[in-house]
Amino acid sequence: MGAENQQERLVKLGWVIGFVDGEGCFSIGFVRQNDRVDRKGYKTGYQVSHEFAVTQGARSLEALYELKSFFKVGQVVINRRHDNHKEHLHRYVVRSRRDLLEVVIPFFRKNRMYTLKQQDFEKFAQCVELVNKGYHLTREGLIGIAKITETMNRQKPRHELIRILRGHTPDIPDMG
Amino acid sequence: MGAENQQERLVKLGWVIGFVDGEGCFSIGFVRQNDRVDRKGYKTGYQVSHEFAVTQGARSLEALYELKSFFKVGQVVINRRHDNHKEHLHRYVVRSRRDLLEVVIPFFRKNRMYTLKQQDFEKFAQCVELVNKGYHLTREGLIGIAKITETMNRQKPRHELIRILRGHTPDIPDMG
Repeated sequence: MGAENQQERLVKLGWVIGFVDGEGCFSIGFVRQNDRVDRKGYKTGYQVSHEFAVTQGARSLEALYELKSFFKVGQVVINRRHDNHKEHLHRYVVRSRRDLLEVVIPFFRKNRMYTLKQQDFEKFAQCVELVNKGYHLTREGLIGIAKITETMNRQKPRHELIRILRGHTPDIPDMG
Repeated sequence: MGAENQQERLVKLGWVIGFVDGEGCFSIGFVRQNDRVDRKGYKTGYQVSHEFAVTQGARSLEALYELKSFFKVGQVVINRRHDNHKEHLHRYVVRSRRDLLEVVIPFFRKNRMYTLKQQDFEKFAQCVELVNKGYHLTREGLIGIAKITETMNRQKPRHELIRILRGHTPDIPDMG
């Protein structure tokens, strides 16, 4: 690689860190799935979703494609807006656990951000790793993950979810 | 400079571009000043303000000091919030025309952003340069600047300002 390309590559790498520092969003969601059971056959009732996303208006789409071409994983998707906003929103999203664990998380572990987002990222990475280890397949594990996400910026309080999970009495293991 | 420092410097430079691409704001304001007169003694009535700013919550203050130490101009100021928000806002601001013309504008001319902010920056730079040439000291020049700012993202419409400026009948030159 020539010296100039190498320079450009480092500046682009920095741009990615800075742009995500400003505009990125690391989020963990809990999706109700009534038929979800844990390894012992107990209903956990929830699936965990994990998403790294950057949202921009249509006129800044180029920035999202820069991210996609940098990480070489994820997609650019459209969030159509039917209200009176000027433009549709677009999102660069990485949801695949494998892409998060192999690409996104190692990148931001290596390249530190300067805002509060750094802390959000660390909690996000911790949750994805817990999910990868199967913690979300037990109620106690799910509660643990929910408690971590509660301390993330702009995440919903999870009292209600935790209350529901704690309130579950063991169901009869699924024999199906 | 060692190879490692050089690498870090390029990544930091990229971070600045990316963070401003996401969070920066280039804005031009019109401040009413009734006693302002142009070179011919006509009242223009307005002064032009120019500001490059990045706003963050208190917990992301480090990012603003990174910008300040990178550009070596500007200040970090506090916008206290007395409502029920979690934290005060802080802003890294560069308002001095000289610092804008000598540091900020050359930097972003050389280092392109990927979002719509790039266009905002170019219009902002054009306005600051027009002010530097004294265009704002005539009503026609002020109208020209106002028309440029109208096409910037999130800037106010300037119909009213332009109407006022156009509506002025020449005042008696100030003999004082």
